[in-house]
Amino acid sequence: MSVTLAVGGGGRETEEFIKNFILPLFKIRSLGSVGLDDLEDGAAVPIGDNKYLVVSVDSYTVSPPFFPGGDIGKLAATGSLNDVAVMGAEPKALMDAIIVEEGFKLSDLKTILKSMSEVTNSLNVALLGGDTKVMPKGSVDKIVISTVGIGIAEGPLLTLDRGEPGDKVLVTGPVGDHGATILALQFGLQVKTLKSDVRPVWPAVKALREALGEDLKAAKDPTRGGLAMALNELAERSKTTVYVEEARVPIREAVKEYAEMLGVEPLALASEGQAVFVVKGDRAEEALEVLRKAGFEEAAIIGELRKGKPGYVISRTPVGGLRLLEKPSGELVPRIC
Amino acid sequence: MSVTLAVGGGGRETEEFIKNFILPLFKIRSLGSVGLDDLEDGAAVPIGDNKYLVVSVDSYTVSPPFFPGGDIGKLAATGSLNDVAVMGAEPKALMDAIIVEEGFKLSDLKTILKSMSEVTNSLNVALLGGDTKVMPKGSVDKIVISTVGIGIAEGPLLTLDRGEPGDKVLVTGPVGDHGATILALQFGLQVKTLKSDVRPVWPAVKALREALGEDLKAAKDPTRGGLAMALNELAERSKTTVYVEEARVPIREAVKEYAEMLGVEPLALASEGQAVFVVKGDRAEEALEVLRKAGFEEAAIIGELRKGKPGYVISRTPVGGLRLLEKPSGELVPRIC
Repeated sequence: MSVTLAVGGGGRETEEFIKNFILPLFKIRSLGSVGLDDLEDGAAVPIGDNKYLVVSVDSYTVSPPFFPGGDIGKLAATGSLNDVAVMGAEPKALMDAIIVEEGFKLSDLKTILKSMSEVTNSLNVALLGGDTKVMPKGSVDKIVISTVGIGIAEGPLLTLDRGEPGDKVLVTGPVGDHGATILALQFGLQVKTLKSDVRPVWPAVKALREALGEDLKAAKDPTRGGLAMALNELAERSKTTVYVEEARVPIREAVKEYAEMLGVEPLALASEGQAVFVVKGDRAEEALEVLRKAGFEEAAIIGELRKGKPGYVISRTPVGGLRLLEKPSGELVPRIC
Repeated sequence: MSVTLAVGGGGRETEEFIKNFILPLFKIRSLGSVGLDDLEDGAAVPIGDNKYLVVSVDSYTVSPPFFPGGDIGKLAATGSLNDVAVMGAEPKALMDAIIVEEGFKLSDLKTILKSMSEVTNSLNVALLGGDTKVMPKGSVDKIVISTVGIGIAEGPLLTLDRGEPGDKVLVTGPVGDHGATILALQFGLQVKTLKSDVRPVWPAVKALREALGEDLKAAKDPTRGGLAMALNELAERSKTTVYVEEARVPIREAVKEYAEMLGVEPLALASEGQAVFVVKGDRAEEALEVLRKAGFEEAAIIGELRKGKPGYVISRTPVGGLRLLEKPSGELVPRIC
């Protein structure tokens, strides 16, 4: 038995790997709040006064490392800080561990570091420390970066289990841009009409928290596995049926076209600059206004949580039929992020 | 200009890379305590009551991933928790980011995860979360692991700048075992008499803190760059001359022989289970007793901090001469840890 690409795909197989291989080995898996078993984007440690330290770590292996809309540096800094933000935590610090291939252009490395710094500087986030390793030529493809996001949250944390029937689901903007861009590049296609959406989502989280208080229930960034995976996790953790109006899900025409051409589910394509929010039903219109004013003009209310079979995502298609939106399985394309 | 192995070697070139390429880009580099500019093993954030959150991240790329005395899992879990411990922090949590090559044996991955869990379980450390990515065959050599160590320290932190003339330097046991083992394996030599020393150093830090209180001044794990790099950093940060009695530095005969055979400085070979301590001069003998009782039977007092040219390490050789022990430069061997 050997490791398959799907184990790292962020979908069904990744979950199974964590549940079967990792959880049974480690005796302690939380420090009193969100930990390994919760399969959230980050972990949380209570630090008194209804506050939490939130920490998240991810590796970024995106290929190619430079792409329309960003590069691996922007992605690595943004990704872990977004994972912290969707827990409800204000990003405070980043740490990085860079592994680069011997012979990599120093000017390219500088560009990547500059992209990382633009993200941290724009959010007033500190780079607290890091590690740089160089692997001999041929032992790693160009560069991979792991980043640690560190933030402070005031409770309650925006965990997916807080969703309840009657809550509405919003998204900050068009989904799938990042996934479609990388997929098209890897297939050697022209990507003139595509661009990664990678950017920090903290401004959206902050604006909603300030406006809605505890009526902002949960948040999630639809990265690996895309919106399909995010909504499935929401349905599972909240023990509800998530109902989606597919016609309301913002997706750019170009993303739809590439997805169709490549035969992939567009809702399973990763977004790296969007967030999904769950809000109390009667605050949804207000939340939409808040997001638009905060600069997320293409935000939309896309569905709601209902009583019903827990863990299911039902999508009403644009032509009116219903379909089950399943957890993505396998690996559409490796090295998406 | 391209990236050389030396940039990741942990010696002089790594420091220059950080100072020239990373520091100028990032506007905020600390959150009120130890941060990026301090070039310590971990970063510290004050959390009130004279306490600090200490966080460290490192990537582990060791080749081969299995070696006498351990494997990449044991090394990755130990390494980041040791980096936290030598700041004076009790390790509380670990997070991991694993990048594995498609086709890697699942049973080997399980062995590696088991090794990680043995370290965390033995220290009552939580695995709070992590990330797993799979890269297509050929794009990474087997497996690399980044780990985040998280601990809580009561001040003062054991930073190297606390050393003063008159303080003594101790080491927990023989140095260079890990470096010699990996080096010999990479040169295809027999390593029957060599074994990595990788293990947690927290028990040593804890015993000394309890016994000596604030008279335990500083600590450091002599990993990349070995004892030579650790002592040079100590001399620089404490603005003293570090004087070492080379005859007192514990080194196994096998390590000396391999170092001689391969033409390398044995004091520049990495240890992954030893710590260097700086203690108030009149507590040194007591510290030695404490270490021996805590299971570090081969601990030794190896030198002292003196007034004199700041930043220099002077070594009295076994035959009585003096030599300058310099910062290692270049990369003896890549992928040592």
